[in-house]
Amino acid sequence: MNFKMIGRFFVLILSIEAAFMLPALGISIADGTHAATKGFLYTLAIMLALILCLGMYSRRAKKSFFAKEGLFCVGLSWILMSVVGCLPFYLSGEIPSYVDALFEMVSGFTTTGASIVPNVEALSRSILYWRSFSHWLGGMGVLVFVLAVIPVSGKNEGFTMHLLRAESPGPNVGKLVPKMRQTAAVLYLTYIGLTVINFLFLLAGDMPVFDSICTAFGTAGTGGFGVKADSMESYSPYLQNVTTVFMLLFGINFSCYYLLLLRHFRAVLGDEELRLYLGLVLASIALISVNIYHIYQSTGDSIRHAAFQVSSIITTTGFSTADFDLWPSLSKGILLVLMAIGACAGSTGGGFKCARVLLCLKSARRNLRQVLRPNRVEVIRVNREPVAEKVIANTNAYLAIYVGLLALSFLVVSFDGFSVTTNFSAVMACFNNIGPGLEAVGPSCNFSLYSGFSKGILIFDMLAGRLEIFPILVLFSPGTWKKN
Amino acid sequence: MNFKMIGRFFVLILSIEAAFMLPALGISIADGTHAATKGFLYTLAIMLALILCLGMYSRRAKKSFFAKEGLFCVGLSWILMSVVGCLPFYLSGEIPSYVDALFEMVSGFTTTGASIVPNVEALSRSILYWRSFSHWLGGMGVLVFVLAVIPVSGKNEGFTMHLLRAESPGPNVGKLVPKMRQTAAVLYLTYIGLTVINFLFLLAGDMPVFDSICTAFGTAGTGGFGVKADSMESYSPYLQNVTTVFMLLFGINFSCYYLLLLRHFRAVLGDEELRLYLGLVLASIALISVNIYHIYQSTGDSIRHAAFQVSSIITTTGFSTADFDLWPSLSKGILLVLMAIGACAGSTGGGFKCARVLLCLKSARRNLRQVLRPNRVEVIRVNREPVAEKVIANTNAYLAIYVGLLALSFLVVSFDGFSVTTNFSAVMACFNNIGPGLEAVGPSCNFSLYSGFSKGILIFDMLAGRLEIFPILVLFSPGTWKKN
Repeated sequence: MNFKMIGRFFVLILSIEAAFMLPALGISIADGTHAATKGFLYTLAIMLALILCLGMYSRRAKKSFFAKEGLFCVGLSWILMSVVGCLPFYLSGEIPSYVDALFEMVSGFTTTGASIVPNVEALSRSILYWRSFSHWLGGMGVLVFVLAVIPVSGKNEGFTMHLLRAESPGPNVGKLVPKMRQTAAVLYLTYIGLTVINFLFLLAGDMPVFDSICTAFGTAGTGGFGVKADSMESYSPYLQNVTTVFMLLFGINFSCYYLLLLRHFRAVLGDEELRLYLGLVLASIALISVNIYHIYQSTGDSIRHAAFQVSSIITTTGFSTADFDLWPSLSKGILLVLMAIGACAGSTGGGFKCARVLLCLKSARRNLRQVLRPNRVEVIRVNREPVAEKVIANTNAYLAIYVGLLALSFLVVSFDGFSVTTNFSAVMACFNNIGPGLEAVGPSCNFSLYSGFSKGILIFDMLAGRLEIFPILVLFSPGTWKKN
Repeated sequence: MNFKMIGRFFVLILSIEAAFMLPALGISIADGTHAATKGFLYTLAIMLALILCLGMYSRRAKKSFFAKEGLFCVGLSWILMSVVGCLPFYLSGEIPSYVDALFEMVSGFTTTGASIVPNVEALSRSILYWRSFSHWLGGMGVLVFVLAVIPVSGKNEGFTMHLLRAESPGPNVGKLVPKMRQTAAVLYLTYIGLTVINFLFLLAGDMPVFDSICTAFGTAGTGGFGVKADSMESYSPYLQNVTTVFMLLFGINFSCYYLLLLRHFRAVLGDEELRLYLGLVLASIALISVNIYHIYQSTGDSIRHAAFQVSSIITTTGFSTADFDLWPSLSKGILLVLMAIGACAGSTGGGFKCARVLLCLKSARRNLRQVLRPNRVEVIRVNREPVAEKVIANTNAYLAIYVGLLALSFLVVSFDGFSVTTNFSAVMACFNNIGPGLEAVGPSCNFSLYSGFSKGILIFDMLAGRLEIFPILVLFSPGTWKKN
């Protein structure tokens, strides 16, 4: 394990995090919220000290870097970012418990949006800004950002590959352009562009500037932290619909946008993952609209609420315009299943990912065919391209690990004694980076009821879900911590 | 598709079912329950007519038989057995709805034990006998029985292989002895032997003869239909403990017993699946005993109830001595996870099977290792024997199909509007052939509340679960119904 190289990377990560904390500090000073200002200043001082120490330690680092170190580096830097990033919450006294502050920060960076704050409207604006901004930074991934802006790697393409692979969601990250650094830049430019457009649409609907910024951050990162206690319920239907559309857009594989820019329209229209994703969205909206019609007594309202909640859940954002815990069980059932499926690979959304569902479905169909004709050889194709057997094996193994970790977390969280639905949906909501669950952790409730131990498990689940398990599991692997 | 050969097989199946119905008819005549006698007599007449028609149709059958036809034959003969076997329930008027009668029969043959009967004590003894006997017949498999007693196949080993593979649970059915027919005979002799011992142990605890027979049938098949409204709650602790032990014994791979007879003790002790199974049982009993101690206020009672319920759920039997729906959520959570895991492959129990869990865990571990060292090649071993990559791929694909079918059934059943926990546990309980679920389908309730449509879905789930999906899915495959 090349610890010095990793240390060098941490210096970069912390510097970027500190730089991004400055706007929050500015808001805090402008608002005259002294406690928050103190929190940010102390945090920045701690970060500076850490940067200096790590900088000293990692001076003469060797450049060699392996897949394992990539995973390790990603896993640990997300933890580092959260452990330090949550200090303003704690030091300002706005979230009095450190575990709660850490939960909130991890929930932010992993774009989960599960909150332990009973009343977000009581938080100061600088804290709200930092909370929402963490979604934006975590959505595309901070390491991808590092790759996009800083020539850290010199000519070491392998190094950047390992990092980008480890942080980006989905079964297989393709290079859009030959160089990884350019790929990262293209991704971030698209991301920034879409976020700005979203912000402008919100402004056009008379949403206050501050709310628009925070909502755009939460939508872009498919996070779900809002600035209102009722999430998006009190905003106008226009603002809700804008958010519905942008949540869906941010749940699409970003390479589709790149293909659109290159005018490869047919490739985008024929994309099987995109078709599955949009098909699921439309079918779910239709079913739920009918199922909840008796509650809203209006076709328009039913469709609006159904569309918002479906988009929010499948993209794992977690905003809400209605307390879906009060909806009929068919609607709740559909939302639970969508929670597990999640958005497209290569988007900012979480969950198991449509691409994986597609591969599992195709390999299941092949399996059935092979039972009937044992000697037949069949290659699985997605978008007409053959998929390597290794990718299929990995996807199926990923499902096994996913189900296993879900079951294990569910059991451990059950120690706290809440209902089966509460526990199951809490684990699902955290692992898939959604936010609200059902019953005691439903849209109108929060996660503060769980014990510190359970919060720790849920923090693990959020990180494992966002980083797709391996970078976090590798931290617990016995061989990892040995020095080379 | 060789329909004539399949027809010939159906003649055998129906003849055996009719023969096994005679004891029930005898009980019914002895008890003087005229309605039940009429039901059995009419059913036998219908069976005779069917046997004659099918016999005429399938006279000159070709002997060629493929894997696909094996699956098809198994799937369809289980449906045939149930469709005909439920007639006594319906024609006697004791279960007034045909869908309910079919549900009850499928629940019996698939050893699920989920019931739609509000008060079993109101049923006549002959009906109760037939209901419990169906567990025993379904437990080891009626086709295995056919193979064991009748030289239908002549020298066609491939034919019997396909049938045995399709009906026996678990990822890979080994031949115990070189000939399939002898393997089937060994399995059934062990099965009969253990059932008789169980019966004698129950008799020794002063259980009435009729109750002992039915309970032994339900235990041996890991079914769970009882003759009392409160399942096993009112029986003495001795009888409950005997049942606990025998449920666990019937959940063990029967090849272990064969190895014991051959004095291969070390092979049995080192069996990884057996170790996983017993480890899960012991850990669950320990956790639940502590968790429910405050309810029973006695260490002995807590352990007895915990052990009974754990054994009943992991072996997918479904007897109960306590309403575990009233237990704390940790205990309920553990039971839900055990529901999904199930018993050992090659036992009479259902579920995903410990052997598959083992393979999934091992392939997940390998997957993690390969992420760290991409170029390493590693062979998965179970009991020191290398496992073919195809078996691992199939197991992982099986998990995908299993999760997919569970999710789909859960959604469809949700249309009825019961709670999320009710629906989820109902689907889990039927698919894994357990019996009771939680909340509205908990141990003290029954499945009669569901609509006819949902009952149909649950019937499909029970059959798919018992036959491990493929023989039932193949019936819905477009190419299957074509004539060769």
